[in-house]
Amino acid sequence: MSGKQYSETYKIPYFETDIKGELTLASLVNILILASEHQLINLNVGEATMHSLNLGWVVTQYHLDITRMPRVDETVKIVTEAESYNKYFCYRNFWLYDEAGNQCVAVQSIFVMMSYETRKMVAVVPEIMAPFESTEMKGSKRFPRIQKVDHALATSKAYRVRYFDIDGNQHVNNVHYFEWMLDALDYDFLMDHRVASVDIRYGHEIQYGQMTQSLVQQVTEEAAITTRHKVAVDDLSAAEAMITWQPR
Amino acid sequence: MSGKQYSETYKIPYFETDIKGELTLASLVNILILASEHQLINLNVGEATMHSLNLGWVVTQYHLDITRMPRVDETVKIVTEAESYNKYFCYRNFWLYDEAGNQCVAVQSIFVMMSYETRKMVAVVPEIMAPFESTEMKGSKRFPRIQKVDHALATSKAYRVRYFDIDGNQHVNNVHYFEWMLDALDYDFLMDHRVASVDIRYGHEIQYGQMTQSLVQQVTEEAAITTRHKVAVDDLSAAEAMITWQPR
Repeated sequence: MSGKQYSETYKIPYFETDIKGELTLASLVNILILASEHQLINLNVGEATMHSLNLGWVVTQYHLDITRMPRVDETVKIVTEAESYNKYFCYRNFWLYDEAGNQCVAVQSIFVMMSYETRKMVAVVPEIMAPFESTEMKGSKRFPRIQKVDHALATSKAYRVRYFDIDGNQHVNNVHYFEWMLDALDYDFLMDHRVASVDIRYGHEIQYGQMTQSLVQQVTEEAAITTRHKVAVDDLSAAEAMITWQPR
Repeated sequence: MSGKQYSETYKIPYFETDIKGELTLASLVNILILASEHQLINLNVGEATMHSLNLGWVVTQYHLDITRMPRVDETVKIVTEAESYNKYFCYRNFWLYDEAGNQCVAVQSIFVMMSYETRKMVAVVPEIMAPFESTEMKGSKRFPRIQKVDHALATSKAYRVRYFDIDGNQHVNNVHYFEWMLDALDYDFLMDHRVASVDIRYGHEIQYGQMTQSLVQQVTEEAAITTRHKVAVDDLSAAEAMITWQPR
């Protein structure tokens, strides 16, 4: 079960890296999505095709396994495939390799098709999927269950939505949630640990000027450190996530 | 009077553009600086050389003229040259052209060399400058005078320095000041106007966790709209700027 693969190389510029010179989570997802857009264009089912059908792609969930985040000036290889789909959900995979061919990152994702008219999810249009050679399936692919934040045990930081958080779809671009989730952790914790895996599921959209809360709860079970996250506007959840960490 | 020119092409990815699909000011400066880094590497006076001398480059001032901001997916040509230098200041120019060869952006900048040991400015090292074929000059190049914000007439927004605002030099990367300066303006103003020119001068460094104020004062003289900006931590000014705007 797998779709047609597309790959490209990418050189990590300094401005997509953090204080340690490592690619940020937000930039990682940006460059993976950019590669998938290039596949769509190559297969003639790019944004123009989607627009003509009044449809857009919306990501609902990511699972990321990060062996090593690439560093500034590294040239990496990004591979992606639209693996499979069912009536409503499309499953796309991504991999990122370093120059020596080592796998640095593996990502599984769920996308849905949204109607620009109704702003609601629609059934997957098979003609769009055909060029990807994705497998049509009956069931759903299982993703890890994201544990909820216990508000009583969580700390939080507030983030006012800024002009540059808003993208061409007039809402907060979802990569900003990674920044709000990680920034809500202590500086020393971020310096002493690295992200090993992320599970994130998206909910309500967020608009310009809204005040968001980024809640975080740290859970340590034996040697494993997990943080549970929620970005919310009042009672509406915009994203929930679960991140596992390793000491540096 | 001009140095050796370096040029490269660059395709604008979606994640470097704003709600209107136009390259952001911050990303513009990022990709210009990236091109200048590539020139340094090509001429064998890159970061490795600077590190071996315990020196770093620090930008102190930019003047930007923006005819048109390139849009998502446009392929642009970036040209840069280290025009000239005197005892302490190096003058570097940048241009950005669209595919039809129209000039979109022209930038003049001032850089200084900083010692990593003393964290202070040092006299320009002529051996570093030689490969650029820059003109050595006695006097200084004039830049427009940046008018001060009148605190009594200014509005302000507060920005807490976040983990991802900090770069490999352990301080706030100066492109974030553009975001703080523009975000301090009203949404409707930003939607209805475009940036025609920017003059910005950098001052004190800002550190993680500090609370900054982004002050802005709008000055309208006849048809010309100018905004005056200051980013400050308490009484210390981190950057002052003057931006001219045109209605869309």
